Amino acid sequence: MSFVYHSRVRFSEVDGASIAYFSRVFEHCHAAYEELLAAAGLPLREVLDTKDWVMPLVHAEADYREPLRLGDALRIEASVERMGATSLTFLYRVLGEEGRLRAEVRLVHVVLDKASFRPRALDESLLAGLERLGLLPQETA
Amino acid sequence: MSFVYHSRVRFSEVDGASIAYFSRVFEHCHAAYEELLAAAGLPLREVLDTKDWVMPLVHAEADYREPLRLGDALRIEASVERMGATSLTFLYRVLGEEGRLRAEVRLVHVVLDKASFRPRALDESLLAGLERLGLLPQETA
Amino acid sequence: MSFVYHSRVRFSEVDGASIAYFSRVFEHCHAAYEELLAAAGLPLREVLDTKDWVMPLVHAEADYREPLRLGDALRIEASVERMGATSLTFLYRVLGEEGRLRAEVRLVHVVLDKASFRPRALDESLLAGLERLGLLPQETA
Amino acid sequence: MSFVYHSRVRFSEVDGASIAYFSRVFEHCHAAYEELLAAAGLPLREVLDTKDWVMPLVHAEADYREPLRLGDALRIEASVERMGATSLTFLYRVLGEEGRLRAEVRLVHVVLDKASFRPRALDESLLAGLERLGLLPQETA
Repeated sequence: MSFVYHSRVRFSEVDGASIAYFSRVFEHCHAAYEELLAAAGLPLREVLDTKDWVMPLVHAEADYREPLRLGDALRIEASVERMGATSLTFLYRVLGEEGRLRAEVRLVHVVLDKASFRPRALDESLLAGLERLGLLPQETA
Repeated sequence: MSFVYHSRVRFSEVDGASIAYFSRVFEHCHAAYEELLAAAGLPLREVLDTKDWVMPLVHAEADYREPLRLGDALRIEASVERMGATSLTFLYRVLGEEGRLRAEVRLVHVVLDKASFRPRALDESLLAGLERLGLLPQETA
Repeated sequence: MSFVYHSRVRFSEVDGASIAYFSRVFEHCHAAYEELLAAAGLPLREVLDTKDWVMPLVHAEADYREPLRLGDALRIEASVERMGATSLTFLYRVLGEEGRLRAEVRLVHVVLDKASFRPRALDESLLAGLERLGLLPQETA
Repeated sequence: MSFVYHSRVRFSEVDGASIAYFSRVFEHCHAAYEELLAAAGLPLREVLDTKDWVMPLVHAEADYREPLRLGDALRIEASVERMGATSLTFLYRVLGEEGRLRAEVRLVHVVLDKASFRPRALDESLLAGLERLGLLPQETA
Protein backbone atom coordinates (compact mmCIF):
# COMPACT_ATOMS: atom_id res chain seq x y z
CA MET A 1 0.00 0.00 0.00
CA SER A 2 1.13 3.46 -0.68
CA PHE A 3 0.00 7.04 -0.30
CA VAL A 4 0.00 8.95 -3.58
CA TYR A 5 0.97 12.57 -4.01
CA HIS A 6 1.06 14.56 -7.24
CA SER A 7 3.37 17.43 -8.01
CA ARG A 8 5.16 19.07 -10.92
CA VAL A 9 8.72 20.13 -11.69
CA ARG A 10 8.96 23.92 -11.55
CA PHE A 11 11.29 26.41 -13.22
CA SER A 12 12.72 27.30 -9.80
CA GLU A 13 13.99 23.73 -9.52
CA VAL A 14 15.72 23.04 -12.79
CA ASP A 15 19.38 23.56 -13.45
CA GLY A 16 21.34 24.56 -16.50
CA ALA A 17 20.37 21.35 -18.27
CA SER A 18 16.62 22.01 -17.70
CA ILE A 19 16.43 19.04 -15.35
CA ALA A 20 15.66 19.26 -11.65
CA TYR A 21 18.68 19.99 -9.45
CA PHE A 22 19.33 16.74 -7.61
CA SER A 23 18.27 17.77 -4.13
CA ARG A 24 14.87 19.13 -5.23
CA VAL A 25 13.51 15.60 -5.35
CA PHE A 26 13.91 15.49 -1.57
CA GLU A 27 11.69 18.55 -1.28
CA HIS A 28 8.98 16.91 -3.39
CA CYS A 29 9.15 13.77 -1.25
CA HIS A 30 8.97 15.76 1.97
CA ALA A 31 5.91 17.55 0.58
CA ALA A 32 4.41 14.08 0.01
CA TYR A 33 5.25 13.27 3.64
CA GLU A 34 3.49 16.44 4.78
CA GLU A 35 0.35 15.49 2.85
CA LEU A 36 0.57 11.95 4.20
CA LEU A 37 0.78 13.27 7.77
CA ALA A 38 -2.21 15.54 7.16
CA ALA A 39 -4.18 12.61 5.72
CA ALA A 40 -3.20 10.61 8.83
CA GLY A 41 -4.79 13.31 10.98
CA LEU A 42 -1.45 14.77 12.08
CA PRO A 43 -0.66 17.89 10.04
CA LEU A 44 3.01 18.72 10.52
CA ARG A 45 2.29 22.17 11.94
CA GLU A 46 0.06 20.63 14.59
CA VAL A 47 2.72 18.03 15.41
CA LEU A 48 5.36 20.74 15.82
CA ASP A 49 3.06 22.98 17.87
CA THR A 50 1.32 20.52 20.13
CA LYS A 51 3.12 17.18 20.44
CA ASP A 52 5.85 16.27 22.93
CA TRP A 53 7.76 14.33 20.29
CA VAL A 54 9.60 15.24 17.12
CA MET A 55 10.63 13.08 14.20
CA PRO A 56 13.84 14.44 12.69
CA LEU A 57 15.64 12.81 9.80
CA VAL A 58 18.83 10.87 10.47
CA HIS A 59 19.35 9.64 6.94
CA ALA A 60 18.24 10.63 3.46
CA GLU A 61 19.11 9.03 0.17
CA ALA A 62 18.08 9.15 -3.43
CA ASP A 63 18.76 6.99 -6.46
CA TYR A 64 18.29 8.84 -9.70
CA ARG A 65 17.04 6.74 -12.59
CA GLU A 66 15.78 9.24 -15.15
CA PRO A 67 15.83 13.01 -15.27
CA LEU A 68 12.96 15.10 -13.93
CA ARG A 69 12.36 17.74 -16.58
CA LEU A 70 10.78 21.17 -16.38
CA GLY A 71 7.01 20.82 -16.35
CA ASP A 72 6.99 17.07 -15.75
CA ALA A 73 4.02 15.86 -13.74
CA LEU A 74 5.20 13.61 -10.92
CA ARG A 75 3.37 10.84 -9.11
CA ILE A 76 5.01 10.05 -5.80
CA GLU A 77 4.11 6.81 -4.07
CA ALA A 78 5.01 6.90 -0.40
CA SER A 79 5.16 3.78 1.72
CA VAL A 80 6.58 2.67 5.05
CA GLU A 81 9.58 0.54 4.22
CA ARG A 82 10.73 -0.24 7.72
CA MET A 83 9.41 0.37 11.17
CA GLY A 84 11.81 0.06 14.06
CA ALA A 85 11.16 0.55 17.75
CA THR A 86 12.06 4.23 17.59
CA SER A 87 12.51 4.83 13.87
CA LEU A 88 10.53 4.90 10.67
CA THR A 89 11.77 4.63 7.09
CA PHE A 90 9.63 5.97 4.28
CA LEU A 91 10.24 4.93 0.69
CA TYR A 92 9.18 7.34 -2.03
CA ARG A 93 8.90 6.11 -5.60
CA VAL A 94 8.91 9.09 -7.91
CA LEU A 95 7.24 8.30 -11.21
CA GLY A 96 6.68 10.29 -14.36
CA GLU A 97 3.24 10.67 -15.93
CA GLU A 98 4.08 7.81 -18.25
CA GLY A 99 4.67 5.55 -15.25
CA ARG A 100 8.43 5.13 -15.43
CA LEU A 101 10.43 5.28 -12.21
CA ARG A 102 12.44 8.49 -12.14
CA ALA A 103 13.89 8.34 -8.65
CA GLU A 104 13.70 6.35 -5.46
CA VAL A 105 14.08 8.18 -2.19
CA ARG A 106 14.43 6.87 1.34
CA LEU A 107 14.01 9.08 4.39
CA VAL A 108 14.78 7.66 7.83
CA HIS A 109 13.19 9.41 10.79
CA VAL A 110 13.83 8.82 14.48
CA VAL A 111 11.32 9.66 17.15
CA LEU A 112 12.66 11.81 19.93
CA ASP A 113 11.17 13.18 23.10
CA LYS A 114 10.89 16.91 22.49
CA ALA A 115 12.20 17.88 25.91
CA SER A 116 15.00 15.37 26.49
CA PHE A 117 15.83 14.61 22.85
CA ARG A 118 16.04 10.93 23.79
CA PRO A 119 14.64 8.25 21.48
CA ARG A 120 11.16 7.08 22.26
CA ALA A 121 8.59 4.76 20.73
CA LEU A 122 6.47 5.81 17.76
CA ASP A 123 3.43 7.63 19.01
CA GLU A 124 0.11 5.79 19.06
CA SER A 125 -1.58 8.64 17.18
CA LEU A 126 0.93 8.21 14.37
CA LEU A 127 0.55 4.43 14.27
CA ALA A 128 -3.22 4.77 14.21
CA GLY A 129 -3.02 7.32 11.41
CA LEU A 130 -0.66 5.17 9.34
CA GLU A 131 -2.93 2.17 9.87
CA ARG A 132 -5.95 4.13 8.71
CA LEU A 133 -4.06 4.94 5.52
CA GLY A 134 -3.15 1.26 5.12
CA LEU A 135 0.52 2.08 5.44
CA LEU A 136 1.52 -0.15 8.36
CA PRO A 137 3.79 -2.95 7.19
CA GLN A 138 1.97 -6.27 7.43
CA GLU A 139 4.38 -7.84 9.88
CA THR A 140 3.69 -5.16 12.47
CA ALA A 141 0.05 -4.38 11.73
CA MET B 1 -10.35 38.47 -14.80
CA SER B 2 -7.70 36.36 -13.23
CA PHE B 3 -6.15 32.92 -13.53
CA VAL B 4 -6.31 30.96 -10.30
CA TYR B 5 -3.61 28.64 -9.01
CA HIS B 6 -3.63 26.70 -5.76
CA SER B 7 -0.61 25.73 -3.72
CA ARG B 8 0.46 25.11 -0.16
CA VAL B 9 3.24 26.34 2.12
CA ARG B 10 5.75 23.54 2.64
CA PHE B 11 8.21 22.76 5.43
CA SER B 12 11.09 23.40 3.03
CA GLU B 13 9.92 27.01 2.78
CA VAL B 14 9.39 28.14 6.34
CA ASP B 15 11.98 29.87 8.45
CA GLY B 16 12.72 29.84 12.16
CA ALA B 17 9.38 31.50 12.90
CA SER B 18 7.44 28.80 10.96
CA ILE B 19 6.44 31.34 8.36
CA ALA B 20 7.51 31.24 4.74
CA TYR B 21 10.90 32.83 4.05
CA PHE B 22 10.11 36.01 2.17
CA SER B 23 11.40 35.05 -1.26
CA ARG B 24 9.46 31.77 -1.42
CA VAL B 25 6.32 33.69 -2.37
CA PHE B 26 8.03 34.56 -5.64
CA GLU B 27 8.47 30.86 -6.35
CA HIS B 28 4.77 30.20 -5.76
CA CYS B 29 3.84 33.07 -8.08
CA HIS B 30 6.20 31.86 -10.78
CA ALA B 31 4.62 28.41 -10.49
CA ALA B 32 1.26 30.14 -11.05
CA TYR B 33 2.78 31.79 -14.13
CA GLU B 34 3.95 28.40 -15.41
CA GLU B 35 0.44 26.97 -15.04
CA LEU B 36 -1.01 30.07 -16.69
CA LEU B 37 1.35 29.67 -19.64
CA ALA B 38 0.42 25.99 -19.96
CA ALA B 39 -3.27 26.90 -19.85
CA ALA B 40 -2.57 29.48 -22.56
CA GLY B 41 -1.18 26.73 -24.76
CA LEU B 42 2.43 27.77 -24.22
CA PRO B 43 4.06 25.51 -21.62
CA LEU B 44 7.29 27.15 -20.47
CA ARG B 45 9.44 24.22 -21.55
CA GLU B 46 8.02 24.45 -25.04
CA VAL B 47 8.61 28.21 -25.10
CA LEU B 48 12.23 27.74 -24.04
CA ASP B 49 12.82 24.89 -26.48
CA THR B 50 11.03 26.08 -29.58
CA LYS B 51 10.38 29.83 -29.63
CA ASP B 52 12.67 32.54 -30.95
CA TRP B 53 11.78 34.84 -28.07
CA VAL B 54 12.35 34.81 -24.33
CA MET B 55 10.58 36.71 -21.59
CA PRO B 56 13.01 37.36 -18.75
CA LEU B 57 12.12 39.32 -15.64
CA VAL B 58 13.42 42.86 -15.27
CA HIS B 59 11.63 43.63 -12.02
CA ALA B 60 10.07 41.68 -9.17
CA GLU B 61 8.40 43.00 -6.08
CA ALA B 62 6.32 41.77 -3.19
CA ASP B 63 4.27 43.44 -0.51
CA TYR B 64 3.80 41.25 2.51
CA ARG B 65 0.49 41.72 4.34
CA GLU B 66 0.13 38.66 6.52
CA PRO B 67 2.41 35.70 7.18
CA LEU B 68 2.22 32.53 5.12
CA ARG B 69 2.36 29.73 7.66
CA LEU B 70 3.43 26.11 7.36
CA GLY B 71 0.63 24.10 5.77
CA ASP B 72 -1.42 27.11 4.69
CA ALA B 73 -3.39 26.55 1.51
CA LEU B 74 -2.83 29.42 -0.90
CA ARG B 75 -5.05 30.73 -3.66
CA ILE B 76 -3.08 32.81 -6.14
CA GLU B 77 -4.99 35.06 -8.52
CA ALA B 78 -2.84 36.06 -11.48
CA SER B 79 -3.80 38.88 -13.78
CA VAL B 80 -2.17 41.09 -16.38
CA GLU B 81 -1.73 44.46 -14.75
CA ARG B 82 -0.01 46.25 -17.57
CA MET B 83 0.83 45.49 -21.14
CA GLY B 84 3.44 47.58 -22.87
CA ALA B 85 4.75 47.33 -26.40
CA THR B 86 7.55 44.98 -25.35
CA SER B 87 6.74 44.25 -21.73
CA LEU B 88 4.15 42.55 -19.60
CA THR B 89 3.42 42.99 -15.90
CA PHE B 90 1.63 40.25 -14.01
CA LEU B 91 0.00 40.92 -10.67
CA TYR B 92 -0.36 38.00 -8.27
CA ARG B 93 -2.72 38.29 -5.33
CA VAL B 94 -1.81 35.63 -2.81
CA LEU B 95 -4.76 34.77 -0.58
CA GLY B 96 -5.19 32.43 2.33
CA GLU B 97 -7.94 29.83 2.42
CA GLU B 98 -10.04 32.22 4.47
CA GLY B 99 -9.80 34.79 1.66
CA ARG B 100 -7.54 37.38 3.25
CA LEU B 101 -4.80 38.92 1.16
CA ARG B 102 -1.42 37.65 2.36
CA ALA B 103 0.86 39.14 -0.25
CA GLU B 104 0.80 41.03 -3.50
CA VAL B 105 3.47 40.29 -6.07
CA ARG B 106 4.32 42.03 -9.31
CA LEU B 107 6.58 40.48 -11.93
CA VAL B 108 7.62 42.54 -14.94
CA HIS B 109 8.76 40.65 -18.01
CA VAL B 110 10.30 42.01 -21.17
CA VAL B 111 10.15 40.23 -24.48
CA LEU B 112 13.49 39.74 -26.16
CA ASP B 113 14.55 38.21 -29.40
CA LYS B 114 16.37 35.05 -28.44
CA ALA B 115 19.23 35.57 -30.87
CA SER B 116 19.86 39.31 -30.66
CA PHE B 117 18.55 39.89 -27.13
CA ARG B 118 16.83 43.03 -28.44
CA PRO B 119 13.32 43.94 -27.28
CA ARG B 120 10.51 42.88 -29.55
CA ALA B 121 6.73 42.92 -29.50
CA LEU B 122 4.72 40.39 -27.51
CA ASP B 123 4.25 37.28 -29.59
CA GLU B 124 0.87 36.72 -31.23
CA SER B 125 0.67 33.21 -29.78
CA LEU B 126 1.01 34.67 -26.30
CA LEU B 127 -1.57 37.38 -26.90
CA ALA B 128 -4.00 34.83 -28.29
CA GLY B 129 -3.43 32.55 -25.30
CA LEU B 130 -3.94 35.36 -22.81
CA GLU B 131 -7.09 36.42 -24.61
CA ARG B 132 -8.46 32.88 -24.48
CA LEU B 133 -7.93 32.93 -20.72
CA GLY B 134 -9.69 36.30 -20.53
CA LEU B 135 -6.54 37.94 -19.23
CA LEU B 136 -6.07 40.70 -21.80
CA PRO B 137 -6.64 44.09 -20.22
CA GLN B 138 -9.82 45.64 -21.61
CA GLU B 139 -8.14 48.68 -23.08
CA THR B 140 -5.93 46.56 -25.32
CA ALA B 141 -8.26 43.62 -26.00
CA MET C 1 29.05 54.12 3.10
CA SER C 2 28.22 50.50 2.52
CA PHE C 3 28.86 47.07 3.97
CA VAL C 4 30.41 44.66 1.48
CA TYR C 5 29.62 40.97 1.20
CA HIS C 6 31.05 38.51 -1.31
CA SER C 7 29.31 35.44 -2.66
CA ARG C 8 29.11 33.31 -5.75
CA VAL C 9 26.36 31.98 -8.01
CA ARG C 10 25.92 28.25 -7.43
CA PHE C 11 24.62 25.44 -9.60
CA SER C 12 21.66 25.03 -7.24
CA GLU C 13 20.56 28.54 -8.19
CA VAL C 14 20.71 28.63 -11.95
CA ASP C 15 17.83 27.85 -14.25
CA GLY C 16 17.58 26.29 -17.67
CA ALA C 17 19.44 29.23 -19.20
CA SER C 18 22.39 28.84 -16.74
CA ILE C 19 21.51 32.15 -15.12
CA ALA C 20 20.35 32.57 -11.56
CA TYR C 21 16.60 32.07 -11.04
CA PHE C 22 15.27 35.53 -10.29
CA SER C 23 14.42 35.10 -6.62
CA ARG C 24 17.85 33.73 -5.69
CA VAL C 25 19.24 37.27 -5.66
CA PHE C 26 17.04 37.95 -2.64
CA GLU C 27 18.70 35.07 -0.82
CA HIS C 28 22.16 36.47 -1.54
CA CYS C 29 21.10 39.90 -0.29
CA HIS C 30 19.59 38.45 2.86
CA ALA C 31 22.86 36.60 3.48
CA ALA C 32 24.59 39.99 3.17
CA TYR C 33 22.11 41.34 5.73
CA GLU C 34 22.94 38.47 8.09
CA GLU C 35 26.66 39.23 7.82
CA LEU C 36 25.94 42.92 8.32
CA LEU C 37 23.95 42.18 11.47
CA ALA C 38 26.76 39.98 12.79
CA ALA C 39 29.29 42.73 12.07
CA ALA C 40 27.00 45.15 13.90
CA GLY C 41 27.20 42.91 16.97
CA LEU C 42 23.71 41.50 16.48
CA PRO C 43 23.90 38.05 14.86
CA LEU C 44 20.42 37.15 13.59
CA ARG C 45 20.22 33.99 15.70
CA GLU C 46 20.91 36.03 18.81
CA VAL C 47 18.29 38.60 17.79
CA LEU C 48 15.70 35.87 17.28
CA ASP C 49 16.59 34.09 20.51
CA THR C 50 17.09 36.96 22.92
CA LYS C 51 15.50 40.22 21.76
CA ASP C 52 11.94 41.40 22.40
CA TRP C 53 11.67 42.79 18.90
CA VAL C 54 11.58 41.33 15.42
CA MET C 55 12.22 42.97 12.09
CA PRO C 56 10.12 41.23 9.41
CA LEU C 57 10.04 42.31 5.79
CA VAL C 58 7.02 44.19 4.48
CA HIS C 59 8.37 44.81 1.02
CA ALA C 60 11.02 43.33 -1.25
CA GLU C 61 11.94 44.36 -4.75
CA ALA C 62 14.61 43.72 -7.31
CA ASP C 63 15.62 45.35 -10.56
CA TYR C 64 17.53 43.02 -12.80
CA ARG C 65 20.13 44.68 -15.01
CA GLU C 66 22.38 41.88 -16.19
CA PRO C 67 22.24 38.13 -15.71
CA LEU C 68 23.99 36.42 -12.82
CA ARG C 69 25.71 33.42 -14.38
CA LEU C 70 26.84 30.13 -12.89
CA GLY C 71 30.12 30.63 -11.05
CA ASP C 72 29.99 34.43 -11.12
CA ALA C 73 31.62 36.07 -8.12
CA LEU C 74 29.30 38.70 -6.65
CA ARG C 75 30.12 41.78 -4.65
CA ILE C 76 27.10 43.01 -2.73
CA GLU C 77 27.18 46.54 -1.32
CA ALA C 78 24.58 46.99 1.40
CA SER C 79 23.53 50.39 2.64
CA VAL C 80 20.70 51.96 4.60
CA GLU C 81 18.59 53.81 2.08
CA ARG C 82 15.89 55.08 4.35
CA MET C 83 15.30 55.08 8.06
CA GLY C 84 11.81 55.75 9.34
CA ALA C 85 10.54 55.86 12.88
CA THR C 86 9.67 52.17 12.86
CA SER C 87 11.09 50.98 9.57
CA LEU C 88 14.37 50.49 7.80
CA THR C 89 15.09 50.14 4.09
CA PHE C 90 18.29 48.46 2.95
CA LEU C 91 19.57 48.88 -0.57
CA TYR C 92 21.75 46.12 -1.99
CA ARG C 93 23.77 46.78 -5.09
CA VAL C 94 24.80 43.46 -6.61
CA LEU C 95 27.91 43.80 -8.74
CA GLY C 96 29.86 41.36 -10.84
CA GLU C 97 33.59 40.86 -10.42
CA GLU C 98 34.14 43.30 -13.27
CA GLY C 99 32.24 45.99 -11.37
CA ARG C 100 29.08 46.21 -13.45
CA LEU C 101 25.76 46.48 -11.66
CA ARG C 102 23.85 43.24 -12.09
CA ALA C 103 20.87 43.88 -9.83
CA GLU C 104 19.55 46.35 -7.32
CA VAL C 105 17.53 45.05 -4.41
CA ARG C 106 15.51 46.89 -1.78
CA LEU C 107 14.30 45.21 1.39
CA VAL C 108 12.00 47.12 3.72
CA HIS C 109 11.83 45.94 7.32
CA VAL C 110 9.48 47.08 10.05
CA VAL C 111 10.32 46.78 13.70
CA LEU C 112 7.69 45.03 15.77
CA ASP C 113 7.37 44.23 19.42
CA LYS C 114 7.75 40.46 19.61
CA ALA C 115 4.88 39.99 22.04
CA SER C 116 2.27 42.45 20.77
CA PHE C 117 3.38 42.58 17.11
CA ARG C 118 2.88 46.35 17.24
CA PRO C 119 5.34 48.69 15.55
CA ARG C 120 8.05 50.13 17.76
CA ALA C 121 11.12 52.28 17.34
CA LEU C 122 14.38 50.87 16.01
CA ASP C 123 16.33 49.38 18.88
CA GLU C 124 19.26 51.36 20.29
CA SER C 125 21.54 48.34 19.96
CA LEU C 126 20.77 48.21 16.25
CA LEU C 127 21.30 51.93 15.74
CA ALA C 128 24.60 51.77 17.61
CA GLY C 129 25.72 48.80 15.54
CA LEU C 130 24.77 50.48 12.25
CA GLU C 131 26.59 53.62 13.33
CA ARG C 132 29.72 51.64 14.14
CA LEU C 133 29.62 50.25 10.61
CA GLY C 134 29.19 53.77 9.23
CA LEU C 135 25.79 52.85 7.82
CA LEU C 136 23.58 55.47 9.47
CA PRO C 137 22.32 57.95 6.88
CA GLN C 138 23.95 61.32 7.45
CA GLU C 139 20.72 63.17 8.16
CA THR C 140 19.94 60.93 11.11
CA ALA C 141 23.44 60.17 12.44
CA MET D 1 43.69 14.16 1.64
CA SER D 2 40.72 16.41 1.34
CA PHE D 3 39.66 19.68 -0.22
CA VAL D 4 38.30 22.16 2.31
CA TYR D 5 35.39 24.53 1.71
CA HIS D 6 33.90 26.98 4.19
CA SER D 7 30.31 28.13 4.29
CA ARG D 8 27.64 29.23 6.70
CA VAL D 9 24.05 28.28 7.48
CA ARG D 10 21.71 31.01 6.24
CA PHE D 11 18.25 32.12 7.30
CA SER D 12 16.90 30.98 3.94
CA GLU D 13 17.90 27.43 4.85
CA VAL D 14 16.56 26.90 8.35
CA ASP D 15 13.19 25.44 9.17
CA GLY D 16 10.73 26.04 11.97
CA ALA D 17 13.18 24.65 14.52
CA SER D 18 15.94 27.08 13.38
CA ILE D 19 17.99 24.20 12.03
CA ALA D 20 18.84 23.68 8.39
CA TYR D 21 16.17 21.86 6.38
CA PHE D 22 17.63 18.45 5.66
CA SER D 23 18.25 18.80 1.94
CA ARG D 24 20.16 22.09 2.25
CA VAL D 25 23.28 20.17 3.29
CA PHE D 26 23.36 18.72 -0.23
CA GLU D 27 23.48 22.25 -1.64
CA HIS D 28 26.44 23.14 0.60
CA CYS D 29 28.27 20.00 -0.47
CA HIS D 30 27.60 20.66 -4.13
CA ALA D 31 28.98 24.18 -3.65
CA ALA D 32 32.12 22.52 -2.19
CA TYR D 33 32.24 20.34 -5.31
CA GLU D 34 32.00 23.42 -7.54
CA GLU D 35 34.93 25.04 -5.71
CA LEU D 36 36.87 21.79 -5.92
CA LEU D 37 36.29 21.62 -9.67
CA ALA D 38 37.41 25.24 -10.06
CA ALA D 39 40.54 24.50 -8.01
CA ALA D 40 41.17 21.49 -10.25
CA GLY D 41 41.16 23.80 -13.26
CA LEU D 42 37.70 22.72 -14.42
CA PRO D 43 35.09 25.29 -13.37
CA LEU D 44 31.65 23.71 -13.72
CA ARG D 45 30.44 26.35 -16.17
CA GLU D 46 33.38 25.63 -18.43
CA VAL D 47 32.75 21.89 -18.17
CA LEU D 48 29.09 22.37 -19.12
CA ASP D 49 29.91 24.77 -21.95
CA THR D 50 32.96 23.18 -23.53
CA LYS D 51 33.38 19.50 -22.66
CA ASP D 52 31.91 16.51 -24.50
CA TRP D 53 31.17 14.74 -21.22
CA VAL D 54 28.84 15.34 -18.30
CA MET D 55 28.95 13.98 -14.78
CA PRO D 56 25.38 13.69 -13.44
CA LEU D 57 24.55 12.26 -10.03
CA VAL D 58 23.08 8.78 -9.79
CA HIS D 59 23.01 8.61 -6.01
CA ALA D 60 23.04 11.04 -3.12
CA GLU D 61 22.91 10.30 0.58
CA ALA D 62 23.35 12.06 3.87
CA ASP D 63 23.74 10.92 7.45
CA TYR D 64 22.75 13.61 9.91
CA ARG D 65 24.68 13.56 13.18
CA GLU D 66 24.06 16.96 14.75
CA PRO D 67 21.88 19.88 13.71
CA LEU D 68 23.20 22.69 11.53
CA ARG D 69 21.94 25.85 13.20
CA LEU D 70 21.33 29.33 11.84
CA GLY D 71 24.62 31.17 11.55
CA ASP D 72 26.81 28.12 12.10
CA ALA D 73 30.11 28.25 10.26
CA LEU D 74 30.69 25.01 8.37
CA ARG D 75 33.92 23.37 7.32
CA ILE D 76 33.35 20.85 4.56
CA GLU D 77 36.08 18.33 3.83
CA ALA D 78 35.64 16.80 0.40
CA SER D 79 37.48 13.68 -0.67
CA VAL D 80 37.25 11.03 -3.35
CA GLU D 81 35.92 7.92 -1.64
CA ARG D 82 35.73 5.64 -4.61
CA MET D 83 36.80 5.81 -8.18
CA GLY D 84 35.30 3.34 -10.62
CA ALA D 85 35.92 2.97 -14.33
CA THR D 86 33.08 5.34 -15.19
CA SER D 87 32.02 6.67 -11.82
CA LEU D 88 33.28 8.79 -8.97
CA THR D 89 32.09 8.99 -5.38
CA PHE D 90 32.82 12.05 -3.31
CA LEU D 91 32.57 11.99 0.46
CA TYR D 92 31.82 15.27 2.21
CA ARG D 93 32.41 15.54 5.93
CA VAL D 94 30.49 18.55 7.24
CA LEU D 95 32.00 19.86 10.45
CA GLY D 96 31.03 22.65 12.80
CA GLU D 97 33.46 25.36 13.81
CA GLU D 98 34.19 23.37 16.96
CA GLY D 99 35.25 20.41 14.85
CA ARG D 100 32.39 18.03 15.51
CA LEU D 101 30.98 16.05 12.62
CA ARG D 102 27.51 17.36 11.79
CA ALA D 103 26.77 15.37 8.66
CA GLU D 104 28.34 12.99 6.21
CA VAL D 105 27.31 13.19 2.59
CA ARG D 106 28.09 10.93 -0.34
CA LEU D 107 27.49 11.95 -3.94
CA VAL D 108 27.98 9.39 -6.70
CA HIS D 109 28.58 10.73 -10.21
CA VAL D 110 28.74 8.81 -13.46
CA VAL D 111 30.58 10.07 -16.47
CA LEU D 112 28.53 10.14 -19.65
CA ASP D 113 29.27 11.10 -23.19
CA LYS D 114 27.34 14.29 -23.76
CA ALA D 115 26.05 13.28 -27.17
CA SER D 116 25.25 9.60 -26.70
CA PHE D 117 24.60 9.61 -22.94
CA ARG D 118 26.61 6.40 -22.71
CA PRO D 119 29.06 5.81 -19.84
CA ARG D 120 32.66 6.64 -20.56
CA ALA D 121 35.93 6.77 -18.66
CA LEU D 122 36.78 9.67 -16.37
CA ASP D 123 38.36 12.41 -18.40
CA GLU D 124 42.15 12.84 -18.23
CA SER D 125 41.75 16.55 -17.44
CA LEU D 126 39.66 15.66 -14.41
CA LEU D 127 42.08 12.98 -13.22
CA ALA D 128 45.01 15.38 -13.60
CA GLY D 129 43.13 18.08 -11.70
CA LEU D 130 42.20 15.73 -8.87
CA GLU D 131 45.79 14.51 -8.68
CA ARG D 132 47.08 18.08 -8.46
CA LEU D 133 44.76 18.60 -5.48
CA GLY D 134 46.04 15.39 -3.91
CA LEU D 135 42.58 13.85 -4.11
CA LEU D 136 43.32 10.71 -6.12
CA PRO D 137 42.91 7.62 -3.95
CA GLN D 138 46.33 6.05 -3.35
CA GLU D 139 45.53 2.76 -5.03
CA THR D 140 44.78 4.53 -8.30
CA ALA D 141 47.27 7.40 -8.15
